[in-house]
Amino acid sequence: MKLFHGGSSPFVRKVMVVAHETGQIDKLELLDGGTTPIETNPELAKFNPVGKIPALILADGTGLANSPVICDYLDSLHRSAKMIPASGSSRWEALHFQAISDGLMDAAVNNRYETMVRPETLRWDAWSAGQMGKVDRVVDALEDSVDILGDRVHIGTISVGCALGYLDFRYGDRKWRGSHPKLAAWFAKFEQRPSMQATMPPKT
Amino acid sequence: MKLFHGGSSPFVRKVMVVAHETGQIDKLELLDGGTTPIETNPELAKFNPVGKIPALILADGTGLANSPVICDYLDSLHRSAKMIPASGSSRWEALHFQAISDGLMDAAVNNRYETMVRPETLRWDAWSAGQMGKVDRVVDALEDSVDILGDRVHIGTISVGCALGYLDFRYGDRKWRGSHPKLAAWFAKFEQRPSMQATMPPKT
Repeated sequence: MKLFHGGSSPFVRKVMVVAHETGQIDKLELLDGGTTPIETNPELAKFNPVGKIPALILADGTGLANSPVICDYLDSLHRSAKMIPASGSSRWEALHFQAISDGLMDAAVNNRYETMVRPETLRWDAWSAGQMGKVDRVVDALEDSVDILGDRVHIGTISVGCALGYLDFRYGDRKWRGSHPKLAAWFAKFEQRPSMQATMPPKT
Repeated sequence: MKLFHGGSSPFVRKVMVVAHETGQIDKLELLDGGTTPIETNPELAKFNPVGKIPALILADGTGLANSPVICDYLDSLHRSAKMIPASGSSRWEALHFQAISDGLMDAAVNNRYETMVRPETLRWDAWSAGQMGKVDRVVDALEDSVDILGDRVHIGTISVGCALGYLDFRYGDRKWRGSHPKLAAWFAKFEQRPSMQATMPPKT
């Protein structure tokens, strides 16, 4: 399989962590997925017309979009511990954590476009405040949910880890740890997993 | 269950269509989910800290976010034909169609914020062009995939239907049908389903 990759994308990191945790990293050939909302990578767009990474090219040459679907696909290909619980409350818990973590990442990435890509004279403070409000609310909700995250390793905790890792990578000045001590302690431990260490964003 | 609802949201419509198709519409109590990226509905945010609709409140009072997860949850609660194929290539086909349709809807909604919500002096044409490029590429890809859509009724075709319905609702002047005749014929038939008729967006 071939994966359109980008080292800065928290959505790509999620896929890579799942591949590591399930012993499948060697199955992935990485392609340069560099793209922006203004100039779409044309090769990527052939397989994911939305023009976003990650996108996977299956063995038969068809494309598979987006990170939850690619993680689900990878999880169907191995026989060790599953990253996506098959049923019951643990399934909905894990998928809800993925959903709100993806929402954090979307908002944080959107705000990067607003503050780093959009011409300075066209920026709108209320938009940035709205996006970062989403980020802050998700971090608050995670602090309240640390007992559910616990020692679990599944698509939910992986997504939380990638979301917090993205905050550290792009928003280091927000210093979320002070006001969220339980989440900080959880992440300090989770981030030590080899799958997380192997997929750290590039140094900026 | 209680669903934070909004009649204009194509993501909410997807959940509603699944509820109709699986005979569960009477299980959903609809709550007003009105919210914007600038002013988040505080009641909604208690259950989905991202502050987006749809969000579901489960019987035990916990929240469940986002539309793919809520559709998956609803699909686990009934014993008639499943909307999400359990495995095999039909599963990945259906989920990929959902992913690119969600991508179309995201881009189309983002462009509405750019052109209708953002102050006029702060709009960026290149951003709008990029978002609408995503829309156009997905419509082109769907035209090429009509044979796969066929007569199927699953999360993929439902998502395609809601995406095209949103284009008609918000972007009627784009007239996508002329250049995509096979997709237009497919949608003309799919849109006649009672589930689609019961969930039409409000007249503008």
